[in-house]
Parts: sequence; structure tokens; C-alpha cells
Amino acid sequence: MVSGASFAVYAPDGIGEVQAGDDLAALIGDALAEQLPPQDGDILVVTSKVVSKAEGRFVVAEDREAAIAAETVRVVATREHPGGGATRIVESRLGIVAAAAGVDASNTPEGTVLLLPEDPDASARRLREALERRFGVRLGVIVSDTLGRPWRVGQTDAAIGASGVKAMDDLRGSVDAQGRPLVVTQPAVADELAAAADLVKGKALGRPVALVRGLGRLLDQAAPGAKVLQRGAADDMFSLGTAEARQEGRRLGDAEGYARGYAEGLRAASRTPAGDAPAGDAPAGDAREADAPAGPPGG
Amino acid sequence: MVSGASFAVYAPDGIGEVQAGDDLAALIGDALAEQLPPQDGDILVVTSKVVSKAEGRFVVAEDREAAIAAETVRVVATREHPGGGATRIVESRLGIVAAAAGVDASNTPEGTVLLLPEDPDASARRLREALERRFGVRLGVIVSDTLGRPWRVGQTDAAIGASGVKAMDDLRGSVDAQGRPLVVTQPAVADELAAAADLVKGKALGRPVALVRGLGRLLDQAAPGAKVLQRGAADDMFSLGTAEARQEGRRLGDAEGYARGYAEGLRAASRTPAGDAPAGDAPAGDAREADAPAGPPGG
Repeated sequence: MVSGASFAVYAPDGIGEVQAGDDLAALIGDALAEQLPPQDGDILVVTSKVVSKAEGRFVVAEDREAAIAAETVRVVATREHPGGGATRIVESRLGIVAAAAGVDASNTPEGTVLLLPEDPDASARRLREALERRFGVRLGVIVSDTLGRPWRVGQTDAAIGASGVKAMDDLRGSVDAQGRPLVVTQPAVADELAAAADLVKGKALGRPVALVRGLGRLLDQAAPGAKVLQRGAADDMFSLGTAEARQEGRRLGDAEGYARGYAEGLRAASRTPAGDAPAGDAPAGDAREADAPAGPPGG
Repeated sequence: MVSGASFAVYAPDGIGEVQAGDDLAALIGDALAEQLPPQDGDILVVTSKVVSKAEGRFVVAEDREAAIAAETVRVVATREHPGGGATRIVESRLGIVAAAAGVDASNTPEGTVLLLPEDPDASARRLREALERRFGVRLGVIVSDTLGRPWRVGQTDAAIGASGVKAMDDLRGSVDAQGRPLVVTQPAVADELAAAADLVKGKALGRPVALVRGLGRLLDQAAPGAKVLQRGAADDMFSLGTAEARQEGRRLGDAEGYARGYAEGLRAASRTPAGDAPAGDAPAGDAREADAPAGPPGG
């Protein structure tokens, strides 16, 4: 009796532990074939962990810090914890900003850590093509990962790879009910699909995949993948942690201030009888015109 | 035939335009009664806009900047746009970090803007209690808003109010499949529910509400509301925009450097014959021991 819109999300059982070298499309396809044969327009959300496992992205655990460093192209923020350890938020080789570059030590075999897939958009495409071939339907595939976020507590799942499905439902150019343009609305639908799927997938429950049925309108064979959801550092108002940026500014300001102060100190001394250098207040007013040498960095 | 987990999301039609003073629980209840009578364990996600409208949170549009300022308790980051206008990210009176303090000018009557609900957790509670009474079932209610985020392009819907439903599914203390503790996993399920609902709700389509069925495990009468999802500035590694923090650090460093430089300049002059003050290089080495006056801020 519903006259509006609706969709459903199913997380099938029975995919089991995934091992390096497994044919993930076959494992997922077998579980779906038995429980929930895919239909045209379905969107499959696959936890990146099983994609990484199938791709054999294991590294021995002694190398965890080295693995994080190797995956890191830019350190965004670090916070040392009082009890030891640190949160390291970095931009990874993939362009994703995430804690520990997405290197994962939970639910992996003892002594190993797991890197993110080599190219999650390509992984999504391979899965989509294999499953479309097997079932003869048009599908979307999203590879999801769990990400923390500034300003809000807890994590949500987001799309780190996508194929055949829009990453963003670009409403720019649309108008609202009063006919005024919706200038800034770009729902990140792939992230919302990943978040929805996380509500039934179970990290520790052997349910690494969810199938979303009813949102075929989001399918788009020409969609560019999830990489478009990554905001480059140049466009990002939060490309560096607050403490790090403050510290960087302080070092710069110190060098600038030192140079100005030094020149002003010399000048003040030259205005004063020898042997009677002023030691009290620094001069008021703007001393920025001073053409002074750069001093040693302090702070 | 599905042996795993599943849920469904429905966005009923027919709620129509909401006006100040409307009984929102009655409007939503009527639409649901006709199309989709709520069942025990259902979770209702309601767009904050209709909650604000029913609560009469309109302000005349000439006051938009004043309205944003009045809602702001802390400016997080500002970026001027080349074509005019600016993005102003602030912590609002509610503790939510959002562009323009959540003050909304789209889909509102000409000449007005809309503030967020006075107390979204209380709004969610009132809606829940009214709908539970009417239908005789136990429900969860989430009030959602559309939020941008650092690092990623586009927006997702998040929970700004909640009642009767967990905001976070706290898995700390759980163990993974290998028996190792899942120390940091706290899925922000209320945000994921809001994101899922956004996939069928239609801002411009007259579908401001979605009903989620199948996730009754997330209901919790004692849950503390969505406020727990707000990370306080003190705990936030991104409490201030990168440019703002750098600028703040630069001012501080400049004052510190100026004071050190000024003292060092005086000292250098005193080591030099009168009338022959050195004007060339600043001294090498650490001048930090100088006990100098604070200089005027520069830079």
C-alpha cells in the first residue's frame, strides 16, 4: 500500500572466511544464487576487508608501522594517547584520508595486517563484470570501508570503490519546490549506500556483503567510481590537523617576528646613547616595514 | 530464502507542505496509517526541515547573516568564494558543526530562512511519544539533517536528534572472529540510518519522512539522543580550519619571535661600538634565552 519510494537491504549468510587468491565474485555469486538471485538494478556493497583478503593484501604484523608509512602520502594529523599509541590520520596512496592509512589489524590472521585493495574502483569493476556476466543483469558494486570523521563521534561506512553506480547524485542545477536552484546539494549516495549496508553487514558475523534492491535509479554504467568522493588537499579546509597547522604557523610567524624584532632592536639601540640600550618596552606601532634578516627559528 | 539479515526503508507520499503550528506527529501518523501502519521496532527518520517548519523556526531572510551569527557559538572555518559569498563552517548553539549553522534558505517561503529545531532530541522524543501512543507500538525516531564533511566531496544525511534508538552501536569490548578486542569500533548507527533514509526521502519531492523496518535491535528506550554523536572541540583534532589555525599560530609565533629578536638586536648593538650598529646578518644560534618584551603583533 506504499505509494512512495522504498528499497531493501539484504546481507546473505554463508560467504565464510575469504582467503588470499579466492575468487570473490564466485563466493559472493554462490551465496546470492542460493539465497537472493540478483535482479536488474541491484547494488552490491562489499566490505573492503574481503576484497583485500581475496587480493592477498596481507603484510606481516611486525611491519604495521612500516606498512602505514608505505601507504601514506601525506600526514594530516597525529595525536599521541596518554596510555601509549597514537592516532595517525593520513592521506593514503589511494587518496583516502583515514586513520592508519586504512591498514587493518582486526579480523586478520594472527601476526598479519591487511592493506586496502590496490585499486578499489577496479576491484568494484571486476566484481561487477563477473556478477553481471553470471546473472545476466545490470548491477552496481560498491567497496566500503569504515571511516572516522571530524566533529562527530563514531564511525560510518563509506564508499572507497564503486562501479556501475553513481557516487554522487548531483542535484546542482535542480530547483526546489519554490523553483529556486539547489546550488550546493550533491548527496554522496555511494557513501549513503555504504552506510545503509553497514546496518546489516556484520564485521564479525561473516556477512561481508549486502545487496540493495530498489535503487536502480542510481545505476550508471558510465559513473566515474568512488575516487570522485575524495576531496583533494588543495580544496579542503581541513587538510591539516588544527594542532599541526597552528604549530606550522607558529614556526613561520616566529621567524618573521624575530627578523622584524631584531631589526627594530638594532634601530632602537642606534637611537640611544651608547652603553644605555633600552631594555624595557618594545616600541609600539607597526614595525613591519623593517627590512631585517631572517632570524633562527625558535619556538 | 534469505538466511542473513535485512531491513527495508519506505518513504510514504502524502505528507505535503508543513506549516508553522502544524501537528507534525498527526500529519506523519495520518500518512503512515493509510500507507504503512508502524510496527513494533520501526524507526522513523524525519527531515529536520519539516520539524523546524512545524515548530515555526522561520526568520525573515534579510536577517540571514544575523540568524547565522545568532546560532553560532564558535567559528570553525571560513572560505571566501572568488565569485562572492563565503562558506562559513561553525559550531551552532546545538553543538553541531555545520555550514551556516544549519540555517537553511531552500524550500522555505520566499523571504524567509529556517533555523534548525530548538532541541532536536526533544523534537524526536515528542514525535516518538505521540506516534507510539497512536499506534500502540515501540518506535525509534531520528531527526536528520544534511551535512558536508571534511576530506570527502558531497553531503550525507546525519542524525541531529534521536529518541528511542541508539545513536551508536558500541562494539568496544566485543571481540573479532579471532577473539581480539574490537577496541575502536563504534558505528554511528543513527547517522547510518539517516543516510539510508536520505536515499528515498525527497527534499523537493514532498517525502520528508522514511520508515526503517527490520532494525528493531537498535531500539533502546534509554538511549541518550543524538547529542552524543557531537564531538566537543577539546576532543577534536579538527576544531579549527587549517588556514585559521595556521594564521592563529603565525600571530602567536610572530609575537614570540619579535620579542626574542628585539632583545637580541639590542644585545647585538650593545656589543658593537656606538654609532656602528650591525645591520647585516642576525646572529646564529639559539636566542631563546633572551628575556625580552613582547613586540607588537605583525604578519
